[in-house]
Amino acid sequence: MTDTTTLSVEELTQIVTRIFSQNGLSALQAEAVAAVIVAGERDACKSHGIYRIEGCLQTVRAGKVAPQAEPELIDDGSALLRVDAKGAFSPAAFAIGAPVLAQRAKDQGIAALAINSCTHFSALWPEVEALTGMGLAALAMCPSYSTVAPAGGTQPLLGTNPLAFGWPRPDHPPYVFDFATSVAARGEIELHRRAGKPIPEGWAIGPDGTPTTDPEDALAGAMLTFGGHKGSAISTMIELLAGAMIGDLTSPEALDYLGTTSLSPHHGELVIAFSPEKFAAGRGGDPFSRAELLFSAILGQGARLPSQRRFSARETSLRSGIRLSAAEMAMLNEFLAAA
Amino acid sequence: MTDTTTLSVEELTQIVTRIFSQNGLSALQAEAVAAVIVAGERDACKSHGIYRIEGCLQTVRAGKVAPQAEPELIDDGSALLRVDAKGAFSPAAFAIGAPVLAQRAKDQGIAALAINSCTHFSALWPEVEALTGMGLAALAMCPSYSTVAPAGGTQPLLGTNPLAFGWPRPDHPPYVFDFATSVAARGEIELHRRAGKPIPEGWAIGPDGTPTTDPEDALAGAMLTFGGHKGSAISTMIELLAGAMIGDLTSPEALDYLGTTSLSPHHGELVIAFSPEKFAAGRGGDPFSRAELLFSAILGQGARLPSQRRFSARETSLRSGIRLSAAEMAMLNEFLAAA
Repeated sequence: MTDTTTLSVEELTQIVTRIFSQNGLSALQAEAVAAVIVAGERDACKSHGIYRIEGCLQTVRAGKVAPQAEPELIDDGSALLRVDAKGAFSPAAFAIGAPVLAQRAKDQGIAALAINSCTHFSALWPEVEALTGMGLAALAMCPSYSTVAPAGGTQPLLGTNPLAFGWPRPDHPPYVFDFATSVAARGEIELHRRAGKPIPEGWAIGPDGTPTTDPEDALAGAMLTFGGHKGSAISTMIELLAGAMIGDLTSPEALDYLGTTSLSPHHGELVIAFSPEKFAAGRGGDPFSRAELLFSAILGQGARLPSQRRFSARETSLRSGIRLSAAEMAMLNEFLAAA
Repeated sequence: MTDTTTLSVEELTQIVTRIFSQNGLSALQAEAVAAVIVAGERDACKSHGIYRIEGCLQTVRAGKVAPQAEPELIDDGSALLRVDAKGAFSPAAFAIGAPVLAQRAKDQGIAALAINSCTHFSALWPEVEALTGMGLAALAMCPSYSTVAPAGGTQPLLGTNPLAFGWPRPDHPPYVFDFATSVAARGEIELHRRAGKPIPEGWAIGPDGTPTTDPEDALAGAMLTFGGHKGSAISTMIELLAGAMIGDLTSPEALDYLGTTSLSPHHGELVIAFSPEKFAAGRGGDPFSRAELLFSAILGQGARLPSQRRFSARETSLRSGIRLSAAEMAMLNEFLAAA
């Protein structure tokens, strides 16, 4: 426990940005990717923290991302914006599109950002949080690659297809959720396998299509959606809206394209932004303070808001820095030296 | 079984429209309400069929709906349209807003319709289906009244908050789902109570906030959300977007306003329409035929698409008419005579 290093968010950001710059990422991509990875580490989301650096670099080395691509904004003045990522990492495409999306939502009430042809590895909460910081509510979704069976099915087809939502809260971190539409993450099944433990019932089916609690079987078979047929329907909606509709790869197509689930998938993403101020205009009552009544009622009966643990870890990190183990520091130094 | 009457969709529509006209609804409201009720009966959705007439009439008699109100479209030319229902039944407000919403989505890529101050009793699938009929994908949601506890909570706060989605399919009925974000409908718990049967675990908690399988306890306590904290987060999002954001009542506010769960609630609704053609433009590939590949893969592994049972009942009704029992015909005749 004494063998740890404490870095400020800024210090860690500089290190991670340097790693990506030295590995061939453009300044925009290096900064945008480093920002989401450090945000994960800062919020004690270890699975989206510096652990992700290696996967990103592998994807670069495999030639499955375009590290120097400059994402291009396509804007015809309508409520629909597009960023063609041209193979870049998605956070760089979002960075280009987000300010325009925010302004368009304020003007139009609602606006959408379709990100196309990106390489995607990050959580969606940094994006919806960024939009809440501009006073907007936001919904984000994307496919991934086929590892989940549709309800009643027997084979992997859908992705873990995350859905994220954010709502701005004055004087509080935003209301934010971001979850996979599978019951569990693939990584959780992998952890059970390594620990030699059975997985809970309802997480997965084996290659023969029947329910299994054996992690090996589950990894060779398919995961299940959360909430049975309802989660399956939502996951299918995500394939349609953030795949077929935006002219980008669905999860089965993304798996075909990449040929493996071990690199970051290439596909698109859909972000919808809402201006609560414009939606509520003329109706009387402030939408943000009315939302606080709902949050108070949730908290008042002992329930939690999503992301509370993450926000409290963030507070600690911002106050006291991010503590990394000796192994983590060694990993960072190795990435710096290897480049 | 011999004592049944078979009516065509048109014949039943005429009867139900007449019932509502004779009970004081404007022509627009009577037609719009009759259309969704007959659609439910036609699709063998008995819980949203002619069974609903009585509840609508009770709400009229209680003065909790404005049967002669003319919903007003408010359109500033942006991607956000509003229909102030002025207390009318929601299907009338949707009927006014839908064609304008469809055109706006085609022009802008995405558009939203906020329906305010409506009385709501109907399923959302007739609305998303109507939009798929105009070539659009659509998402609809609304609060209801507090009967559901947030995940980790002990008291009713959220509504059963339905979420519906539709995607147009050439040569097939659309891909449509429409479900409550509670595990079960309140009516299902009531049916268990009448039958003296316990409800499944995970449906509800009792008034003391602990899990129960006793339907009496469940009705006095709170229902639970589907998919645990994920369903709870989605239900909360619906309160925010289709309640606080659009300047209309959340589920606790709707319950306060009405003072009972036995009449149709007064609140708002949010409908979002997407033009897949505009979203996919310039990307190559037809979004509708690409979506069909996904549907084929779902069906090909023996899974079902949502609403399949409903569409097959519809086919039968359109071909052979809607068969009503003697008791159902007597109910219709009584409503006609009583007016």
